[in-house]
Amino acid sequence: MVQFVHPARDDITLAGVLAALADPVRLQIVRGLLTEPACMSCTAAAPCPDIPKSTLSNHFRVLREAGLIHTTKKGVEHRNTVREADLNARFPGLLKAILKHADE
Amino acid sequence: MVQFVHPARDDITLAGVLAALADPVRLQIVRGLLTEPACMSCTAAAPCPDIPKSTLSNHFRVLREAGLIHTTKKGVEHRNTVREADLNARFPGLLKAILKHADE
Repeated sequence: MVQFVHPARDDITLAGVLAALADPVRLQIVRGLLTEPACMSCTAAAPCPDIPKSTLSNHFRVLREAGLIHTTKKGVEHRNTVREADLNARFPGLLKAILKHADE
Repeated sequence: MVQFVHPARDDITLAGVLAALADPVRLQIVRGLLTEPACMSCTAAAPCPDIPKSTLSNHFRVLREAGLIHTTKKGVEHRNTVREADLNARFPGLLKAILKHADE
């Protein structure tokens, strides 16, 4: 059984969030997840189809462990959502301010 | 003669800025520099006096190479300023949004 590590809201740190977003692929993943109303599988949230599955999996792990996304297992798929409420409670306005510049 | 590497404004990247700020000490350095109207020496901008000089020097290099600060040599001192105009031109509102949360 796969166990996902999700930090508690209060354990989400600014340095951790910035480090997790300090990568163009991870920025695009988070931006993609936010535009989608439902949760998304890792494959669907990938910014481009050429990324090896192991690389993609690592990106999702980094985002999850920094508190940016929440992952659940549904059948064989991992479903992801951005922890918007937690992030906005911890660092109001931060995620929006960063993602605004993510398409450059 | 020491040569400082400063990226051109257009070469400053979002991922680079986030990576440089993804460290509590570097966040405090930038915050300290911004509260000071004049430029500051590396020692004066250090968030606490216990940090070894080589560690501090590395933090300043990371900030400089990401385009966050500008360093000049004055006598034996390195004088630093935050590249506020460049950063606000590239990513309006970003620096302020991040530093707002830097004291947590």
